[in-house]
This record gives sequence, C-alpha cells and structure tokens, in this order.
Amino acid sequence: MILRDLAGRLGCEVRGDGAVDVVRVRGIDDAEPGDLTFVSNARYVPRLATTRATAVIVSPDVPTPLPSLLTRNPYLAFARAVEALHPSPRPEAGVHPSAVVDPTAVLGAGVHVGPFAVVGRAARVGARTVLHPHVVIYPGVEIGEDCVLHSGVQVREACRLGSRVVVQNGAVIGSDGFGFAKDDAGRYEKIPQIGIVVIADDVEIGALVAIDRAALGETRIGRGTKIDNLVQVGHSVSIGADTVLAGQVGIAGSTRVGDRVTLAGQVGVAGHLTIGDGVIATAQTGIPSDVKAGQIVSGYPAIDNRGWLKSSAVFAKLPELQRRLRELERRVADLLPGKPPT
Amino acid sequence: MILRDLAGRLGCEVRGDGAVDVVRVRGIDDAEPGDLTFVSNARYVPRLATTRATAVIVSPDVPTPLPSLLTRNPYLAFARAVEALHPSPRPEAGVHPSAVVDPTAVLGAGVHVGPFAVVGRAARVGARTVLHPHVVIYPGVEIGEDCVLHSGVQVREACRLGSRVVVQNGAVIGSDGFGFAKDDAGRYEKIPQIGIVVIADDVEIGALVAIDRAALGETRIGRGTKIDNLVQVGHSVSIGADTVLAGQVGIAGSTRVGDRVTLAGQVGVAGHLTIGDGVIATAQTGIPSDVKAGQIVSGYPAIDNRGWLKSSAVFAKLPELQRRLRELERRVADLLPGKPPT
Amino acid sequence: MILRDLAGRLGCEVRGDGAVDVVRVRGIDDAEPGDLTFVSNARYVPRLATTRATAVIVSPDVPTPLPSLLTRNPYLAFARAVEALHPSPRPEAGVHPSAVVDPTAVLGAGVHVGPFAVVGRAARVGARTVLHPHVVIYPGVEIGEDCVLHSGVQVREACRLGSRVVVQNGAVIGSDGFGFAKDDAGRYEKIPQIGIVVIADDVEIGALVAIDRAALGETRIGRGTKIDNLVQVGHSVSIGADTVLAGQVGIAGSTRVGDRVTLAGQVGVAGHLTIGDGVIATAQTGIPSDVKAGQIVSGYPAIDNRGWLKSSAVFAKLPELQRRLRELERRVADLLPGKPPT
Repeated sequence: MILRDLAGRLGCEVRGDGAVDVVRVRGIDDAEPGDLTFVSNARYVPRLATTRATAVIVSPDVPTPLPSLLTRNPYLAFARAVEALHPSPRPEAGVHPSAVVDPTAVLGAGVHVGPFAVVGRAARVGARTVLHPHVVIYPGVEIGEDCVLHSGVQVREACRLGSRVVVQNGAVIGSDGFGFAKDDAGRYEKIPQIGIVVIADDVEIGALVAIDRAALGETRIGRGTKIDNLVQVGHSVSIGADTVLAGQVGIAGSTRVGDRVTLAGQVGVAGHLTIGDGVIATAQTGIPSDVKAGQIVSGYPAIDNRGWLKSSAVFAKLPELQRRLRELERRVADLLPGKPPT
Repeated sequence: MILRDLAGRLGCEVRGDGAVDVVRVRGIDDAEPGDLTFVSNARYVPRLATTRATAVIVSPDVPTPLPSLLTRNPYLAFARAVEALHPSPRPEAGVHPSAVVDPTAVLGAGVHVGPFAVVGRAARVGARTVLHPHVVIYPGVEIGEDCVLHSGVQVREACRLGSRVVVQNGAVIGSDGFGFAKDDAGRYEKIPQIGIVVIADDVEIGALVAIDRAALGETRIGRGTKIDNLVQVGHSVSIGADTVLAGQVGIAGSTRVGDRVTLAGQVGVAGHLTIGDGVIATAQTGIPSDVKAGQIVSGYPAIDNRGWLKSSAVFAKLPELQRRLRELERRVADLLPGKPPT
Repeated sequence: MILRDLAGRLGCEVRGDGAVDVVRVRGIDDAEPGDLTFVSNARYVPRLATTRATAVIVSPDVPTPLPSLLTRNPYLAFARAVEALHPSPRPEAGVHPSAVVDPTAVLGAGVHVGPFAVVGRAARVGARTVLHPHVVIYPGVEIGEDCVLHSGVQVREACRLGSRVVVQNGAVIGSDGFGFAKDDAGRYEKIPQIGIVVIADDVEIGALVAIDRAALGETRIGRGTKIDNLVQVGHSVSIGADTVLAGQVGIAGSTRVGDRVTLAGQVGVAGHLTIGDGVIATAQTGIPSDVKAGQIVSGYPAIDNRGWLKSSAVFAKLPELQRRLRELERRVADLLPGKPPT
C-alpha cells in the first residue's frame, strides 16, 4: 500500500516520501525493505538509525530521515496499520454440514458455523458472528453481531454475549459457580447455580478462561474489558468497563471490580469485595479487602504500592536488621549492667 | 409452590401464612412478590424490613413478619429450595446419532450421550449419566451412575469415576503426569505415566481443571470433595473426603491431602507432603512442608495464620522500624562515643 | 520379560539371578512378585528389606540380595523399563470417517486422525503423528513426525510444531496474544496478532496450557523443553532448550527464558525480561527484573534464594523484633531522660 494512502486510513500525516510502497508491518529489528515499522517507546528511537524498514510510524517530535507516518499515538496507529496491511481472512458465511444446529436456534445473516459446532435449542447468534469448529452453544444462549468464538469455546445455558466479543480457544462461559451448603454431617450439598453470565460489547476473553454463572442473578463483564488467558471469574462477580485482567488472575465470588481497573498477572481477589475504578494491582498481589478508587496496591495482603516497595527493600535486609538489633541490645546491656533486658 | 408444601420437602417449620405461593428463589435485594428469599448471615437481617419477597428462609431466632420457613441451617434449606423450585431440565435418554460410541462400550439405562461425544473401547457409563456434547471418554474408562459431564470434558484411558460426580466444562481427568528422567547429557526423557485417576462418589470438578494420572498406581480424589476451576492436581496425589480446593490451587505430585481440608484460592502445595485433616490454608499460601491436622496456615513459606497476620502487619511498617533502629544506633553511639558500632 | 534381556535393552548390568521373569513396574511399597521396582533416592533403600518385588533397579553401591539391574542412573533406567514393559498401544494409522480433513491438507504416512478431528486448509501433519479425537488444526499449521496431540488440543493458524512433540489434552497453541492499544478515549483497540508459535522437537506441553502467538514474528519453545499443566506463555516469549516450567507458571509477553531453566509451580515472570541459562526459581516466585544465568531466586520480588530463606525466617519473628525494638527505645530513653526519641 502506498504510504500516503495508508496515512489517510490511519489519520496520520506523512513526512518525507509518501509514494513509497509498504507491504508488511514488522518490529524495528526484524524489518526489511518494504516493511513498515513503528516507535512508540523512546528507548527504541536510536534503532531508527539501523532499521532496514522502508517507513516508520513515529511521534512528530522524533527526527528520522525515513518516510514517516506522524501521530501522537504511534502504538494505536501501529495497531490499525496491522489491521490494514494484514486483514485477517474471515471465514465464509454458512453452516458446515457436520454442525448440529437445533431447528429452534436463530442464526443472523452471514453467520459462519464451523465443523462439529453445536448450537442448542432457542439459541440466537447475531449477524456475521463466527463460530469456529467445536464451539458449543448451550440452549437459550444469546450472542450479538460480529463476534468471533474460537474453537473449543463453551457457552453454557442462557448466557448472553454482546456484539464484537472475541473469545479465544477453550474458554468456558457460564460454568456452575462454586456454591455448596454444608449439611449437619459436614458434607457439602450443591447449590444449583441458576443465574447466568452477561458479557457486554467489545469484550475480549482469553484462552482457557473460566467465567462462572451466578447462583442467582448475573455474573457481569463490562463493555470493552479485556481478559487474558487462564483467568478465573467467580459467580456473581461484576466487572466494569475498559478493565484489564492479565493472565491467571483469579476473582472470587460476588466481588465488584470497577471501570478502568488493571489487575496484573496472577493477582488474586477475595470474594464479596469492592475494587474501585482505576485501581491498579501489580503482579501476584493478593487482595483480601476493599480497595478505593485510584489506588495502586501490591503484596499479600495488598498494601499501597509505594509502601510495599519500601517494605520489600527492607525485607531483603531483615537478617542484617536482626543482627544490628541484637548488637544494640548487647551495648545497652553493657550500659545498664544491673538491669537485664526484659 | 405453596409454602407449607415446600416446608415439608425441606424439613422446615412454617411461621406465619403457610398458604402463600412462591415460584422462584431470589437474593434478598432482588426479590419481588412471589419470590422466596433467605437470610443465612446476620448482616442481612436488617434487609428483611425492605425486601419485597413473599417469604423467607430464616433461623428460628430471627424475627420477621414475613411468612417464614424456619431451620437452623438456612443456607442448606436455600440450596434445597433452589433445587425444588428450579429443577434443572435433564437431557433425555439416548445417544445422539452423531456420537461415536465404540461397540464394546457399555452404557447403562437412561444414559444421555450428546452430539460429537466419543466413548472409547470397553468404556462403561453408569445409568442415567449425562455426557454433554463433545465429551471424550478414552478406552477403558469407568463412570458411575447419575454423573454429569459437561461439554469439552476429557477423561483419559482407564480412569474411574464414582457416582453422582459432576464435571464442569473443559476439565481434563487423567492427563499424563509431569515425569521425566534426566539422561547423562542433561536432556529429559519421558517416564510413561501408566497409572490412572480414581474419583470417588459425589465429587465436583470445576471447569478447566487438570488432574494428572499417576506414574504408577493411582491419583485419588475422595468422596464429596469439591474442586473449583483451573485447579492443578499432580500425579499420584491423594486427596481425602469432603475437602475443598478453591480456584487455581495447585498441588504437586505425590502429596497427600486429608479429609475436610480447605485450600483457598491460588494456594500452592509442594510435592511429596502430607497435609493433615481439617487443615485450612488461606488464599495464595505456599506450602513447602508437612502441615499437621487442624492447623490454619498462611503466607509463603506457610506459617501459622495468627503469626502470619501479626508479621504481615509489621511488614507494612518495616521502613519505620528501620528508621527507629538507625536512630537508636545513633543515640547509643552518642552515649558511648569511644566505641563505634560494629 | 527375562531380567537379563531387559538389562540388555536398558544398558544395565545384572547382579544376581538374571533368569527371573518380570512383567510389570511398580513402586517399592506396592510391588508384588513378578514386579520390577527401583530405588533412585537413598531414603528408600531400607524398604528393599521388605519389598515383595522380584527384582530392582539400583545404583551399584546399593547392597541387596534381590536380583538387580545396576546403573548409575536408576531413575532413567526406570523410565525406560516402564516403556519396555508397558508399551503404550499406538492408535492405528488412518483417518476416522467422521474427521474433517481439508483436501489441501497433507498427511504423512501412518498418521492417525481420530473422530471429529479437524485439519484445516494447507496444514501438514508428519508421518506417524497421532491426532486424538477432537483435535483442531487450523489452516496452514505444520506438525512434525511422531507427535501425539491428545483430545481437545487446538493449534491455531500457521503455527509450527517439530517432531516427537507431545501435547496433553485441551492445550491451546497460538491463541491471540494479549495486545491492545489505548485510544484517546481510554478504550482498548485490539492489535491483530499476526505472528505464530514455533515449537521445537521433543517438547512436551501439559493439559490446558495456553501459548499465545506473537503480535509480529514468533513465540518460541526450545528443543526438549517440558511444560506442565495450566501454564501461560505470553506472546513473543522465547524459551530455550531443556527448560522446565512447572504447573501454573505464567510468563508475560516478550520475555526470553534461557536453556536448562527451572521455574517451579506458580512462578510468575514479568514481560520484556531476560532469564539466563540454568536459572532456578522456587515455587510462587515473582520475577520483576532480569535474572543472571545460574542464579537461584525466590520470593516476590525475587531475590537470591539463600537471602530469601534467611529473611523469611526473620519475617516469622517480626512481632518479636518489634517488641524488642520498643523495649530498647524505652531503656535508651531512661538513659537519656532529657532527650525524647525523635
């Protein structure tokens, strides 16, 4: 694609030769002639001197003799350039003859249903949604338009997905919540989980994620929220909009997570809590109690991130502190020979 | 259902008008006329004043003018009320024409086999067990009566499940254990994992759980034990009865976990350990050595919960402690000017 | 098998009666007459006195009257003995009539394709590779010879697997990496993930593992590396050869892990790091920065293992240290009554 045409599509300005042809997007070190690359991090600016790329997406304040697409958000323009130069082939509309679609299910226009997919009784699948091979849609499920469900995804009975939802392979939406009542003999009796999961528009759900249905009512994932692989969302959890859950995060039942929250990898959140808007929890944080909007927390039990960083630095010196304390005790005892330490 | 009829089924006493009709179970805040709700936690008693529910399950000592079902275990009665008012539709008996059932497999009376399920050579499936779509049963597997295996469950060769076992979507039972021997060049050679997994009656296994088969012998899950989503159980592990493993727990190979143990979310247990009966490990605990029956442990490495809570409180003040120690050293040095601190 | 014949196959020497017949491999406590057992850990030597096994694999320096196979690596000989005495039945060559194999896909000689497997456009599957039921191979995938992919495995578009790769049930190879660019309104826009995953020869991948495809370029797993269940490997990660990732490990995007590294259970590694050759991280370690070759690290944030062990020991005594510090402050204040502590 001619650079200046791409600029139009991405809403960038051109600096230098807008007539060069770019055919591919590559990282700055791997790029070859014909490639478009990008710099969104100041650390990579020096590599512009050596890259073999034909053109680059940069911020206007980055000087380079290369033909450039200028934008204040190079990372976003990069995302859109990949989309423009590497359009993903959309599976053709139609139902594979091997798929089992219940006669009462309703498929919108242009839906693709792959081999061995199962669409249950009274399920509804919106226009242009793609069900890859081996997707299982239980009865009563509703799925919006332009969704992509990759192979091996399971959506349990009566759950609802909005539009433009992407679900990576093997994810499970609507498995029974983990709810049991103890009888007098100390044995657990299952509480039927009769709620559902409701997923808003523009959500992405990673591979092998498990989102449990509510015992009663709904487990909710808000608009635009992105969930990485192997995350566990317990029953009746409510997650806001534009929130990010990184890989292997776990959220126990009935907790409410706000908008624009970031939980980094392997973070765990206990049940029945409220995590305010904009909270950030660094990797492996364990959250046992409510967190106010805007806080950055770390550690287990989670405390303020700055305090945790300082305490962690001292933790590494604890043996030395212990020695110094012992030495002080000895010296003070010398000063007060008649009074033994208590 | 008329309240007094429900009382009979649940073994509760009626207080107030036993002739009211309840059609649904809902949480105390969401309930509407016609709904039955419950209070199992003293914190929710005040909400009885404002709930719109028609009737409530409560402990006898909770005063309320609402028609009530009285029981000393309201949570258990709630579980049973859900079961009574919201019976889950059981798939009809029969084998879907698309399923592949080996001619040597034996299916009990009333078994349901969904689309694209696979039942291997010489496998046995007990009466009334439900295999949802896309369940894969390898050769030689034995499954008891009244089990429910949700879509995408895989049961590997020769594993055995008891009766009334529920397995949520995508769980894997009997994958190869993680066993390798190092050769002289430092390369790993696979140890064939020829053992099996044996799961007792009334066990529930969450979505995307992995339970490895033993290298030799058996990996065992005891009667009534409940396992939440994304849990990892290593090869040759033995877990007792009525034990609870919360989401994302990991148990390394050959460890023995007792009866009535609770491992909270994301707990990790090293291999070849013994965790006694009734042990509780709080969330994210890492257990590197044996734990005696009845202990409550926390932290990594795991220590007694009360000590951990106290140490964690001090951890948050470590920078302050370090400052105070430094100040003391200075003051003591002032007292002993000739003797520098060591 | 006659013990002396087995000795020939395993490259062991025989001590005692080489004519005894062994039919099975069992653990030392479970063994019965006719069984071969092994001792690879000095702790188990005393049990040789009571085992009912017919023969044993031991190191030459272990005295026992039992007929013995002698080797300096009993654990490796054990692995090979299991292989010899318990050969796993190989599924027959051929494509199950229910499988959907694209006409442009190329299957090598002796390939087995199980029920409901899907092999996409232009995919290539090497000789003797086994695709169990419900394996999904997206278009353009290349798989080497003698691989085993268990049921429910998903391999996404254009990913490449070497030879003798074993993939346990439900693993996902090549799901989209977790890459999003924020627009000016704070919403996330998906970055198409157009890279692939490349897995070298002799790799084993556990059940329900997720390995994301690169945004651009490749996510790489090196020769002979072994990955346990429920592990998460982020996009563009590169892992060396003969490395071991235990259960539930998570590695964030673009991190490079060296050769012969061991990450124990539930370890988390942040993105864009370099973990040197031979590094060991003990269970639950959280790694926020580069780790040099050969280091042993623990804790979160990860520090040197020996320092961490010492600091952890002091952590458990923090309340006591705090008391002693307070007492010292009191005593020093007594010495300097005019000067209040600062």
